[in-house]
Amino acid sequence: MKVQQKTYLLFVGLLICLGIRAQEHPNLILTQSGIESIRKNLGTIPLFDSSLKTVQNAIDQEITLGIDVPIPKDYSGGYTHERHKRNFLTMQKAGLLYQILNDEKYAVYVRDMLFSYEALYKTLPVHPKERSYARGKLFWQCLNDSNWLVYTSQAYDCIYEFLSKEERDVLEKNLFRPFADFISIENPQFFNRVHNHSTWGNAAVGMIGLVMGDDELVDRALYGIKDAGLETDARDNDGGFINTKGKAGFLANLDEPFSPDGYYTEGPYYQRYAMYPFLIFAVGLNNARPELKIFEYKDSVLLKSVKTLINLSDKDGEFFPINDAQKGMSIFSRELTTAVDIAYHYGIKDAELLDIAQKQNRVVLDDSGMAVANAVSQGLARPFLKKSVDYSDGPKGEKGGISVLRQQDLELVFKYTAQGLSHGHYDKLSFMLYEDGHDVIQDYGMARFVNIEQKGGGNYLKENKTWAKQSIAHNTLVVNETSHFDGKYELGSKHHSQRFFLNISDNKVQVVSAKEQNAYPGTAMQRTMAMIESKEFNKPFMLDVFKVNANKENTYDFPMYFMGQVIQTNFGYATSTTLEALGTKNGYQHLYLEASGISKKGIGKLTWMRNNQFYTWTSVTEEGDEFLFTRLGANDPEFNLRRDAGLMLRRKESQNTLFVSAIESHGSYSPVTELSSSSRSSIEELSIQLNTDKYTAIGLKHSNGKKAILIISNQDPSSETTHKLNIKSKEYQWKGPYLFVDFKP
Amino acid sequence: MKVQQKTYLLFVGLLICLGIRAQEHPNLILTQSGIESIRKNLGTIPLFDSSLKTVQNAIDQEITLGIDVPIPKDYSGGYTHERHKRNFLTMQKAGLLYQILNDEKYAVYVRDMLFSYEALYKTLPVHPKERSYARGKLFWQCLNDSNWLVYTSQAYDCIYEFLSKEERDVLEKNLFRPFADFISIENPQFFNRVHNHSTWGNAAVGMIGLVMGDDELVDRALYGIKDAGLETDARDNDGGFINTKGKAGFLANLDEPFSPDGYYTEGPYYQRYAMYPFLIFAVGLNNARPELKIFEYKDSVLLKSVKTLINLSDKDGEFFPINDAQKGMSIFSRELTTAVDIAYHYGIKDAELLDIAQKQNRVVLDDSGMAVANAVSQGLARPFLKKSVDYSDGPKGEKGGISVLRQQDLELVFKYTAQGLSHGHYDKLSFMLYEDGHDVIQDYGMARFVNIEQKGGGNYLKENKTWAKQSIAHNTLVVNETSHFDGKYELGSKHHSQRFFLNISDNKVQVVSAKEQNAYPGTAMQRTMAMIESKEFNKPFMLDVFKVNANKENTYDFPMYFMGQVIQTNFGYATSTTLEALGTKNGYQHLYLEASGISKKGIGKLTWMRNNQFYTWTSVTEEGDEFLFTRLGANDPEFNLRRDAGLMLRRKESQNTLFVSAIESHGSYSPVTELSSSSRSSIEELSIQLNTDKYTAIGLKHSNGKKAILIISNQDPSSETTHKLNIKSKEYQWKGPYLFVDFKP
Repeated sequence: MKVQQKTYLLFVGLLICLGIRAQEHPNLILTQSGIESIRKNLGTIPLFDSSLKTVQNAIDQEITLGIDVPIPKDYSGGYTHERHKRNFLTMQKAGLLYQILNDEKYAVYVRDMLFSYEALYKTLPVHPKERSYARGKLFWQCLNDSNWLVYTSQAYDCIYEFLSKEERDVLEKNLFRPFADFISIENPQFFNRVHNHSTWGNAAVGMIGLVMGDDELVDRALYGIKDAGLETDARDNDGGFINTKGKAGFLANLDEPFSPDGYYTEGPYYQRYAMYPFLIFAVGLNNARPELKIFEYKDSVLLKSVKTLINLSDKDGEFFPINDAQKGMSIFSRELTTAVDIAYHYGIKDAELLDIAQKQNRVVLDDSGMAVANAVSQGLARPFLKKSVDYSDGPKGEKGGISVLRQQDLELVFKYTAQGLSHGHYDKLSFMLYEDGHDVIQDYGMARFVNIEQKGGGNYLKENKTWAKQSIAHNTLVVNETSHFDGKYELGSKHHSQRFFLNISDNKVQVVSAKEQNAYPGTAMQRTMAMIESKEFNKPFMLDVFKVNANKENTYDFPMYFMGQVIQTNFGYATSTTLEALGTKNGYQHLYLEASGISKKGIGKLTWMRNNQFYTWTSVTEEGDEFLFTRLGANDPEFNLRRDAGLMLRRKESQNTLFVSAIESHGSYSPVTELSSSSRSSIEELSIQLNTDKYTAIGLKHSNGKKAILIISNQDPSSETTHKLNIKSKEYQWKGPYLFVDFKP
Repeated sequence: MKVQQKTYLLFVGLLICLGIRAQEHPNLILTQSGIESIRKNLGTIPLFDSSLKTVQNAIDQEITLGIDVPIPKDYSGGYTHERHKRNFLTMQKAGLLYQILNDEKYAVYVRDMLFSYEALYKTLPVHPKERSYARGKLFWQCLNDSNWLVYTSQAYDCIYEFLSKEERDVLEKNLFRPFADFISIENPQFFNRVHNHSTWGNAAVGMIGLVMGDDELVDRALYGIKDAGLETDARDNDGGFINTKGKAGFLANLDEPFSPDGYYTEGPYYQRYAMYPFLIFAVGLNNARPELKIFEYKDSVLLKSVKTLINLSDKDGEFFPINDAQKGMSIFSRELTTAVDIAYHYGIKDAELLDIAQKQNRVVLDDSGMAVANAVSQGLARPFLKKSVDYSDGPKGEKGGISVLRQQDLELVFKYTAQGLSHGHYDKLSFMLYEDGHDVIQDYGMARFVNIEQKGGGNYLKENKTWAKQSIAHNTLVVNETSHFDGKYELGSKHHSQRFFLNISDNKVQVVSAKEQNAYPGTAMQRTMAMIESKEFNKPFMLDVFKVNANKENTYDFPMYFMGQVIQTNFGYATSTTLEALGTKNGYQHLYLEASGISKKGIGKLTWMRNNQFYTWTSVTEEGDEFLFTRLGANDPEFNLRRDAGLMLRRKESQNTLFVSAIESHGSYSPVTELSSSSRSSIEELSIQLNTDKYTAIGLKHSNGKKAILIISNQDPSSETTHKLNIKSKEYQWKGPYLFVDFKP
């Protein structure tokens, strides 16, 4: 029996011994002592006071508008959906205001709204919209019903003592208990999984259980429903497996998707979404079930993951759009305010988190928010310095990972993770490049306009599957115009890439290398990406070495989705007079071919301008390589896709091969002074000096004549091994998996 | 004899009497008393001190890099071009620093560089690049040579007394006089026109004349070359006429392109460029020839035009891209710093200009800069409030004009000007819409990447003519797929649109109406645009009534270049699987047809999202109208064009007709909260209630059921006329050219 399982049993035993507990309220996210401290400090802690004022103004206005609990009807973006959403957000805040300000009008408001819901819910059928694999009652999916309960539990906790016993009994009997049962027992396909949906469900059931003092609900939340009898092959709307082999409940959801480094396997966009129920339920457990030591669980992974999440955002705090992700979502979301405050208060009092809280310029109105505001007012904040990071993926950190190489304003994100559950993309060994908070070489993100009802009800658009998830939508290698794992989720879910070596401790030469053996059976891929600072360049430049070993000849497509305007190429190309789709499936049907050229052996160069900055991509070419300029937007009958550009290097009838590229950010332009500086690339030559099973060596020549070389060990990643190699009569000797010799005459 | 001509002669007489004058130096943009005041105030006026510090740091660094005066070789963007440009900018500043700081190192630097130029220039042939109609010597065109001399004259003036008489004689004999002669007498096709090029030439010759005390040069600058013998039909590189019928010289250039309202006929982008030589030479004349009273010339048009120019910029201070114009050029350009400082100091001490100076956060290092900095430090600045404006075009304000309707963050620019010389576009009655400093319905601007050498030498690209100038590139009506005036400059230059009526004094209902009779012979056009604030809407909405009377049946294309992503239409459309160009000429060859639909009688609606804001365009349709979704980029072999969207309403076999549209900015979206607000249009119905020769009446119905009406008088623009009209049994009576009855039940 594993240690973890033993711990579970211990918890269960403890809970049984304790029975149903009588507790004072609030005891969920507010505590008696916390409230006392908040009331005492009112008017003295600016960040808390301003946050309070903002919330109070908004809620006061809501209260004057009156209560509306409409009969459910719409998808997200529609009125009833948005109204119910606003209701639970308002109730939660009104509950806090009642506690903080001791003003009964807020309690009355929450009480009246709860009874409106009680009246509605008693006879409410499932939601009329039928699209979801787990339809809710208030909303079209159980997920949103769970959101409602997570927030409403907090409101209920805040006014618990304000209500009479009779009132509580009515609410619990007619509303909360049936609500909790509906999203769990009646929808095990939703509740009993390892998935962010289930996390919400677990937290919802657990939190109302904590408030009601209902241990059965709390147990159900923590450990899931026993023998839920889910079908083995059933899928959700996103194509994710429903039966996760008996693993279920909040703790399982903590075990599975989080790596020991705090990386959440679906990526930061969904981590942000999932963090809220994880953390808010954890706070409730911490307060009401301190013996669980939930924040210490799995080496404090919950608190650790907050910092991981922040580190997966760009300079402006916007999350890198990994897997399904809407661009623009950021550390300024309400979930992150909660996360940062909780991570600070219940964690090691990390002063860098205070810097983020200051930028957010608001705190949550509870114990943790007060702790953060107080610390900020004492001047304890320290700058949050985003450094290069590498995070493992997988419950035990065994399923690949993700790196962010940072230097100056450049951020290179390299993804070699596992599939990422149903929101994962087929993009093994893909990358994206940012400068100063703008994407320079983009990952498309998802094809969805969240909550904009006119665009497919605000839900995933079909182009998310036909384009955004496909390999060709990403900056990685595509073999024979098919996606990794043939775009099959069950295949992709079985595998993950593997880190080969990593060095981000040397700021000057940061290198990460990873391998992928399974995306294309019979074709092994290794990608090594480096960010190198050299005094010959104004800014760091990137090197990208993509090695392919195949058991047969293939066609390789190596796309690069540059953002901005073509400035210059060093190769000839012909534009198409009529535009046709590049293919018929696997994402190719969405790409128009705008121009193409045939390359000679040598290098291909594209210089483009994005956000008044000049960039150049230089790639080693073989005779006959094709350059394809693509434009997104073919077969897009409802204008769901952006008309973004791409350049693809296509190599046909090739078996073992190497794609070698350098990326420079080298200059800028001002439309005000109309001056450009360093508008040209400095890399005059890029060449393969050696490429064997054991080593790959890349030579660079600067336009000033100086030369550099990068040598990669392809088989031995050890940092201890000493290598000796002769390349073109020159002897190299070094220790570790790579050698970079900086530019010299 | 006209009064103006008399004044000219008086000037000439005066100058002859005065002969060559001996003057103290500096006396061009710095004066003795100014320098004394500057030196006295050093260290006490923050804005001046910080501006001085910035300049000093930059120039000190330049000086340490040493002098480089390369042999001319490149187009703009290339090394020698940019080097010579940097040289003159540096010399001018070094001259000022010498005067202000009294440090000889700056004088030595200017002197040494001048002698380097003297050594180079003596034997310099014309520039090797042959593209220009007037090749320079240091640069590929005389225009840039003139830039050089305008700046260098100032530097020379500053170190005049530092140099020995012998040194001055050498420089004047070998460099300045031949330089001035080359860009004037040897290039009359450049110097002797009414054109911004000539203004630079005039100022260059005049300014060096003032410094040298050479009245012959000053006269040549002011009045041009007599009998230059230019060919009648000759054109410049932009297609502009070279022979401007004997009108030439600085004063003629002041008379012709500026309207009495201070609108410069080429538009703000070129006004910004031209303002510098106008103003800097005027300052020189003001100091050295005060009797000319140059700043009072033509009702002080020079100073007035600075404010006009600022008012033709958006909320961020970026100029509206009228005619050939690079987007992004703004009030933050160095020319505008000079302009604002001069306009303040030599004008009425307008406190709103100080607000702009504060935003620019720098002043020029001369008398005017000190005056501005001093006033700012005294707290005299007042907010520059951009209101709705209307400016006439034409020397006497007789050639149409341009309106900017402003309300809240919305800015609607309506153009009914003259052709705008060779930089003009064929875009009669066109408009563009801005919100919060972003273009919502765009004017393309120009097809050029100024000074980015890789893009056609940084010069105008051929797509500027084939696309950007064409009527179909603008938000206006195109008849039978041909541009206004058949795209012929000689025709367009003969005509102008005419204002019909205007009311911008009522903030709630702002209306402008103009007519165009000549763009298509036999087809009369009248466009009326309104910006209306009604309490039924969150923000003002726009109405657009385009009336056409033709002598035969035509095909009408009514394009609208919306920026952003299609959110929803109320009409069906089919997307094209392969994209083909919409036409073969007049700009149509650059538009791909992405989708099309046939309309029924009623209204067509497009909602789109730009910059997280929702917009809806609602247009009255006739049975059989076609909706064409276009995408720019066809026949663009070098990726010179942006891939921007457009929607075109096409009406075939139509004679007299009416295009009626409403434009709403109605909501917003946040990718952080993922909430959208007011994502739907509120205009439920839009209809033509009446359309006769005399009146056009447009009905609107709000989604709340309330109705409104706009009635336009088509023949009588008088604000005094009382109208009486019966529409569908309802009696309307009002005074003036239009009536708007706000929404009511």
